[in-house]
Amino acid sequence: MPAFAIGVDLGGTNMRIAAVDETGTLLEKVTTGTQVSRGRERVLDEMTTDIQALAAKFQRGATLLGIGVGLPGIIDIHTGFLHESPNLPGWDDYPVRDEIERRLGVPVVLENDANAAALGEKWIGAARDFDDMCMLTLGTGVGGGLVFDGRIWHGMTGMAGEIGHINVDPEGHICGCTSRGCLEQFASATAIVRMAREAGATGNAPALARAIGDNPEFSSKVVYQMALQGDASARQIYRRVGWALGMVVADLVNALNLPIYVIGGGVASAWEAFAPAMFEEVKKRSFVYRATAPEQTGRIEPGTTIITRALMGSDAGLYGAARLPMLREETQHHVARQVRRA
Amino acid sequence: MPAFAIGVDLGGTNMRIAAVDETGTLLEKVTTGTQVSRGRERVLDEMTTDIQALAAKFQRGATLLGIGVGLPGIIDIHTGFLHESPNLPGWDDYPVRDEIERRLGVPVVLENDANAAALGEKWIGAARDFDDMCMLTLGTGVGGGLVFDGRIWHGMTGMAGEIGHINVDPEGHICGCTSRGCLEQFASATAIVRMAREAGATGNAPALARAIGDNPEFSSKVVYQMALQGDASARQIYRRVGWALGMVVADLVNALNLPIYVIGGGVASAWEAFAPAMFEEVKKRSFVYRATAPEQTGRIEPGTTIITRALMGSDAGLYGAARLPMLREETQHHVARQVRRA
Repeated sequence: MPAFAIGVDLGGTNMRIAAVDETGTLLEKVTTGTQVSRGRERVLDEMTTDIQALAAKFQRGATLLGIGVGLPGIIDIHTGFLHESPNLPGWDDYPVRDEIERRLGVPVVLENDANAAALGEKWIGAARDFDDMCMLTLGTGVGGGLVFDGRIWHGMTGMAGEIGHINVDPEGHICGCTSRGCLEQFASATAIVRMAREAGATGNAPALARAIGDNPEFSSKVVYQMALQGDASARQIYRRVGWALGMVVADLVNALNLPIYVIGGGVASAWEAFAPAMFEEVKKRSFVYRATAPEQTGRIEPGTTIITRALMGSDAGLYGAARLPMLREETQHHVARQVRRA
Repeated sequence: MPAFAIGVDLGGTNMRIAAVDETGTLLEKVTTGTQVSRGRERVLDEMTTDIQALAAKFQRGATLLGIGVGLPGIIDIHTGFLHESPNLPGWDDYPVRDEIERRLGVPVVLENDANAAALGEKWIGAARDFDDMCMLTLGTGVGGGLVFDGRIWHGMTGMAGEIGHINVDPEGHICGCTSRGCLEQFASATAIVRMAREAGATGNAPALARAIGDNPEFSSKVVYQMALQGDASARQIYRRVGWALGMVVADLVNALNLPIYVIGGGVASAWEAFAPAMFEEVKKRSFVYRATAPEQTGRIEPGTTIITRALMGSDAGLYGAARLPMLREETQHHVARQVRRA
């Protein structure tokens, strides 16, 4: 009998649920109306109802392997508790995994949303031909995920992949993590809006200042549209995004020498506006990249370092979540082992 | 029958060779008089002569498993050729491994010297209780090595672990790699001497200026002695070393969440002078570190991030080289796989 799994992408505002078969084909996707702000119980009720409906629909002809859930925040992969999840108030220190398992009677695997997105792009996206990859998700914040030997690298306590908090400029803008000048302060949608406001306030970017003043929905997308239309200040902001991304991708290439780095999330839609500055900086900053840079043949040659756009858009995390129950337990989680003898 | 291996540490100036048994006990160590500057043929002749003498001595009672050689430079782990090795002129693009194997008739494994040092500290040094670790070697330059799942992580082309070229300050001192403000420009012996000369030239560090003027052998060790004696400018230089190290260790903790980071090499002897600033910066810059920082109990608790001095001094690379032939082939090298289907 064929098999399928159900993935859940629990975002900061909405929740999406999909049934996906083992080849990565979408069977059905549900975007729930429930807003996460309505609270944990409401979200869990709707999640389990929708999962049960999807499961019932496809379980006649296929085996349900389990449920994978991607969530923003740090997950204790041993206990299935959620920690430090500012976007899911009320979910901290709550046994999320056990509670969903109890309600559904099916194995549940939790994963950090950025890690789930990395797994999605690795499975059927931009990194599908690679066992080792790194993904950066440029959204409200900047998330990261590392896949080594086909498995998400969790590190010792499940906190690996915090690439948004790698240093770009030690004297840069203060970050929520208490550091300064982290990548997230340059390459997130939030940072792009902040940089636009800063530029608008100088008096030297009148078009940006007008756009901010006129538009209550002013966003990084507006800045991108203005950059496309040739506004010099908007273009300069995206060059700064690319410069910062290039610094951090160079660090990652130098440290890890992976075959592929995938850049996704909403901000990656502005690829044309930031990619040239990014590549320029990676070339300048990483001799490992220069030694392995692809020739412009369009083919993927062995031994070359690929830096590329994500292919799956906002679905990467949803597919990645569905992928988790399909993996054997030892490949779901790649945990640094410690203190064998102590 | 017990078994042993022979490790070779081929440095920029001298060569050391050791027979080591499978428990990590040193059987005999030879420091050869031949200077590497005398050229490749001379070095290879002496290396093979000394290896043969050591092998003959111990082969009566034990099996020789092979030869491991640690070298400065980038090694093509598939072909055994050496690339980009400025400290070994004349060795570039030469089949080092095959030539030593041909002369000795014994399997030879080559390894980058910083990776060999990481393996030594992982085997019987500061990281002996861990399967995953990162080592930084602060010497003339700054080298790095990553061990994941007990194996040296080589990345795609054997160039992983170039932690000396992770960014600290994008506007910092120009680096030999063409980037600016790399860790190597702050935390190598070379950088410490440069920072001392810069401080001396300002006129505000008279004691440093005198020490530089008087001493043709002025070195990072002299700066350390002056820091110990309370010279404010010398202490400030080591605080800057610690600040930069803290920045990069924070990056590594955020990205990899490993249980242990080991700091070795000659500059690590000045631990007391740079460690306080390093820990201060890691705490400020890495929320992953703050979530996993050890309590000051002196015990190693599960789930804590250790940042510590290397234990094996200048022998780490020699033991690590000897360790290589003891590992099964698939654990000698941990290579990122690429393009399975393309």
